[in-house]
Amino acid sequence: MLSASRAMTVRELFEGGELLRAVGAHSALGASLVEEAGFDAVWASSFEISAARCLPDASLLTMTDYLQAAVQMHSACNIPIIADVDTGFGGTMNVAHMVREYEAAGISAVCIEDKLFPKMNSFVPSKQELLSSPDFCRKIEVAKAVQSGPDFFLIARTEALISGQGTSEALRRCRDYANSGADAVLVHSKSKSQREILDFLSDWNGRLPVVVVPTTYPHWHVVDAHEAGVSMVIYANQALRASIQAVRQTLQAIRDKGMSSPVEGDIVPVIDVFQLQRLEEWQELDT
Amino acid sequence: MLSASRAMTVRELFEGGELLRAVGAHSALGASLVEEAGFDAVWASSFEISAARCLPDASLLTMTDYLQAAVQMHSACNIPIIADVDTGFGGTMNVAHMVREYEAAGISAVCIEDKLFPKMNSFVPSKQELLSSPDFCRKIEVAKAVQSGPDFFLIARTEALISGQGTSEALRRCRDYANSGADAVLVHSKSKSQREILDFLSDWNGRLPVVVVPTTYPHWHVVDAHEAGVSMVIYANQALRASIQAVRQTLQAIRDKGMSSPVEGDIVPVIDVFQLQRLEEWQELDT
Amino acid sequence: MLSASRAMTVRELFEGGELLRAVGAHSALGASLVEEAGFDAVWASSFEISAARCLPDASLLTMTDYLQAAVQMHSACNIPIIADVDTGFGGTMNVAHMVREYEAAGISAVCIEDKLFPKMNSFVPSKQELLSSPDFCRKIEVAKAVQSGPDFFLIARTEALISGQGTSEALRRCRDYANSGADAVLVHSKSKSQREILDFLSDWNGRLPVVVVPTTYPHWHVVDAHEAGVSMVIYANQALRASIQAVRQTLQAIRDKGMSSPVEGDIVPVIDVFQLQRLEEWQELDT
Amino acid sequence: MLSASRAMTVRELFEGGELLRAVGAHSALGASLVEEAGFDAVWASSFEISAARCLPDASLLTMTDYLQAAVQMHSACNIPIIADVDTGFGGTMNVAHMVREYEAAGISAVCIEDKLFPKMNSFVPSKQELLSSPDFCRKIEVAKAVQSGPDFFLIARTEALISGQGTSEALRRCRDYANSGADAVLVHSKSKSQREILDFLSDWNGRLPVVVVPTTYPHWHVVDAHEAGVSMVIYANQALRASIQAVRQTLQAIRDKGMSSPVEGDIVPVIDVFQLQRLEEWQELDT
Repeated sequence: MLSASRAMTVRELFEGGELLRAVGAHSALGASLVEEAGFDAVWASSFEISAARCLPDASLLTMTDYLQAAVQMHSACNIPIIADVDTGFGGTMNVAHMVREYEAAGISAVCIEDKLFPKMNSFVPSKQELLSSPDFCRKIEVAKAVQSGPDFFLIARTEALISGQGTSEALRRCRDYANSGADAVLVHSKSKSQREILDFLSDWNGRLPVVVVPTTYPHWHVVDAHEAGVSMVIYANQALRASIQAVRQTLQAIRDKGMSSPVEGDIVPVIDVFQLQRLEEWQELDT
Repeated sequence: MLSASRAMTVRELFEGGELLRAVGAHSALGASLVEEAGFDAVWASSFEISAARCLPDASLLTMTDYLQAAVQMHSACNIPIIADVDTGFGGTMNVAHMVREYEAAGISAVCIEDKLFPKMNSFVPSKQELLSSPDFCRKIEVAKAVQSGPDFFLIARTEALISGQGTSEALRRCRDYANSGADAVLVHSKSKSQREILDFLSDWNGRLPVVVVPTTYPHWHVVDAHEAGVSMVIYANQALRASIQAVRQTLQAIRDKGMSSPVEGDIVPVIDVFQLQRLEEWQELDT
Repeated sequence: MLSASRAMTVRELFEGGELLRAVGAHSALGASLVEEAGFDAVWASSFEISAARCLPDASLLTMTDYLQAAVQMHSACNIPIIADVDTGFGGTMNVAHMVREYEAAGISAVCIEDKLFPKMNSFVPSKQELLSSPDFCRKIEVAKAVQSGPDFFLIARTEALISGQGTSEALRRCRDYANSGADAVLVHSKSKSQREILDFLSDWNGRLPVVVVPTTYPHWHVVDAHEAGVSMVIYANQALRASIQAVRQTLQAIRDKGMSSPVEGDIVPVIDVFQLQRLEEWQELDT
Repeated sequence: MLSASRAMTVRELFEGGELLRAVGAHSALGASLVEEAGFDAVWASSFEISAARCLPDASLLTMTDYLQAAVQMHSACNIPIIADVDTGFGGTMNVAHMVREYEAAGISAVCIEDKLFPKMNSFVPSKQELLSSPDFCRKIEVAKAVQSGPDFFLIARTEALISGQGTSEALRRCRDYANSGADAVLVHSKSKSQREILDFLSDWNGRLPVVVVPTTYPHWHVVDAHEAGVSMVIYANQALRASIQAVRQTLQAIRDKGMSSPVEGDIVPVIDVFQLQRLEEWQELDT
């Protein structure tokens, strides 16, 4: 919150037309590292936020929890936050409540998915049942009807590929979602390659931007994705996974060696933490 | 919260007499990694918790924020949490309120320090003014008077060395704090060696356990520390610093390479996150 | 939190066998007024808590919100809190999460109802659809399976009468719920008389205590209810409704008269607020 | 949050030049009743908010708690909220953090007072020590320096009369506060008459609006106050006190009579609660 320059909105980002890259985070610190690395937006990931609480990504944490995390990220950086809001936390009234609360808190982009509440993380082998398309469209319509300002941006995410219903169902649903007022679509896939996504893109009319999450097809280069018609790529959970790896190694070394000096070379100095806390700017206030 | 076996209390840990090792964390996930690595306790670090919010460790976050973080850590592991409660968040009434709220929430060990509110992190070159010893003793007495159960454990931390007042002042204060009912003392030092701490220990009567935080003297081996009279060593912020380093490197690589496949070998797989979320145990409930 | 005497648990209350009376509240202050008036327990009412937020009682507020309110009530009084947890906030995993979170926070009695999530308040003319009995029984079984201590007390509430399915369905469901491990049943009715409840009670085998909420049949005397087989009566929302009436009248008078002196005789003096805040006890700490 | 018309800001209210009346509240519901009664603004009172938690108004609740309450009030009405932020929750860095957090959350008017942290409620006979005027001016300057938008409005409250330092000290301080950038001043008095305030007003140069809180001199008519130079009158706690009186009487009657029918005539019907929850507007979304 120390910087004066206003963040671009997600709407403005998409209007720019260039390939956008977002990265998943679960804390203000994570968001600020995403910004520091030069990405365009922060994905306030349900998977990361629930993992930070040691809970499955299965609608256990609540809108209150997710919103708090998103607001903390928002306050720490000048790139916009895209909040992963799962199913919208229930039915259409829950979606309306979500839009009002998020927008009032300064979070003007959310991504809502077409699974049943409570949902299960898309990479977990489980039922992955979808809400009917008309019912999900009703959620989109309500979300767009209750937004109070023009910036609010709604990404409609289909889990048609995740639930095994194929590209044609994904296309049918995304067209419905576009007709219902979504501002972009996210097509999620857990395939080992981008083939499914390419199939989708080849038949997509392009009337709305397409967002993808290449967790299981990480070798798809952004330039290729962009050329194929993708507007935004989200690296949804790599930062979390890097952090777990590093903390594990560091703690094991400290425990095994009986001191922390052997790890000092592999971890940032305390002064770097001070910089991330913007300590100097704060201290200037205290004179 | 899935395990049935009760965590040992911090009181029980200290009564065991063996060298104890605690590690700083700021989230439930961090706490569970501390437990996984075989440490004895989690240090719910003000420095880490405020860094996770991109705010200085300067009494900006509130008791509400710190307690929430400690409770989330507590719910995720079966080793006890030692909550870093800074100055106790104000005066004696604030200390009483803190003890009641923490104890009611299941956090039965706190560490309170003798700096003025608002405090500044000990490693920041700044005034580092101390509360008078009688005033801090009054905080200790009130804390012990309002605790409701026998498990509650209060570590009194002196910043006498941090504020440049020397070993004799540290000793004088720690004796006062012991007389006022503290259950252990923490002597903090930002010296590049353990010399100050050794001086303290050589004159300490041993009536209360001594806790140290070897951030600036990381080469002091735990066995040596134990032999010198230390009961607990806290590795207060290395996990956070490891995580920042790893996330930075990972994000830079993803950005530079245009895809995430190059980092896959250096980050844990998604399945590891599922295990940390205890997904299988949760799924068994859902049948 | 200032008193030392431990509150009786809800389990102990029911074991006493006397008629119990609980009153709905939405804040710590409300709970303390319920205790002051001599009632046995506080009903942490979803209707009141959502009304205090100006939101419908329709699963809009989250478990996080309701738990926070219940914990605040718990900290302010020495009579136990019965938390109204609606449907358990989703499916069986949500119920398990709820039980763990509530129990860890010191709330050892909850009441879960057999409507679909998201629910709508029972007095609202709307679909009021029920979950199937086997699915609700599964929620009860999971709740009882994950509780960690013996005190935890689960009231299973049927909305069979609210949804127009009649006494026989209410009886069938309550028997199922008893078989699944519920500790008591609550039979809700929006009838203008206690006739439906009497019909239920005449066929109930009495193996579990019965709780009622006589909002729409307020003339049923507790002695008569007890003789008919009721174990607990909950006055679920009268305090809220009294407070709205009083605040409206007071504000209108202040506005119309242009000063507040005319209302002074109808409102408690500031000193009464100090007493409810237990100011003297707190000040004794600060000497 | 359901209404579309934007609330006037506190700045706009004061620019209007008419006498303003604000009323204290502690919840969204309370705020909506203040709006319903036709007042101009809601005073998010520390005294009321801490009383709702059964805690003294003595800096025990935290910025996090007070901000949450203010945000909930803000979301429920279309008149602006003036947040009572006590001393600013510590030193100048705490004030900066407070301004950023409140402004980001949509609360654009705060009132900060010149007592030491932790403070004690002004009506409690206690030390009531003041911060030096230069130190408090520094808080004002920092607050104004970090605000991000033009709407943010800072009321500087002097407790000079409360601490027994007389009208001349109150005037001296308020002039300093005006020079430091405050947008209005609040002169608090616990005198049984408005005499102290009139003395202040007769020497006040009128360069900033004056706010008063006539709790102990409730017979001062708003028209007289306005003519004497007051811009805003705050009825800070009467709604809370009305509510306590009403809840006490209602609960006692229910307990004594053994049923709730005798109180039905003195409490609003359930349908009134539905209206305050804006149930119909919400239900229209759910079709």
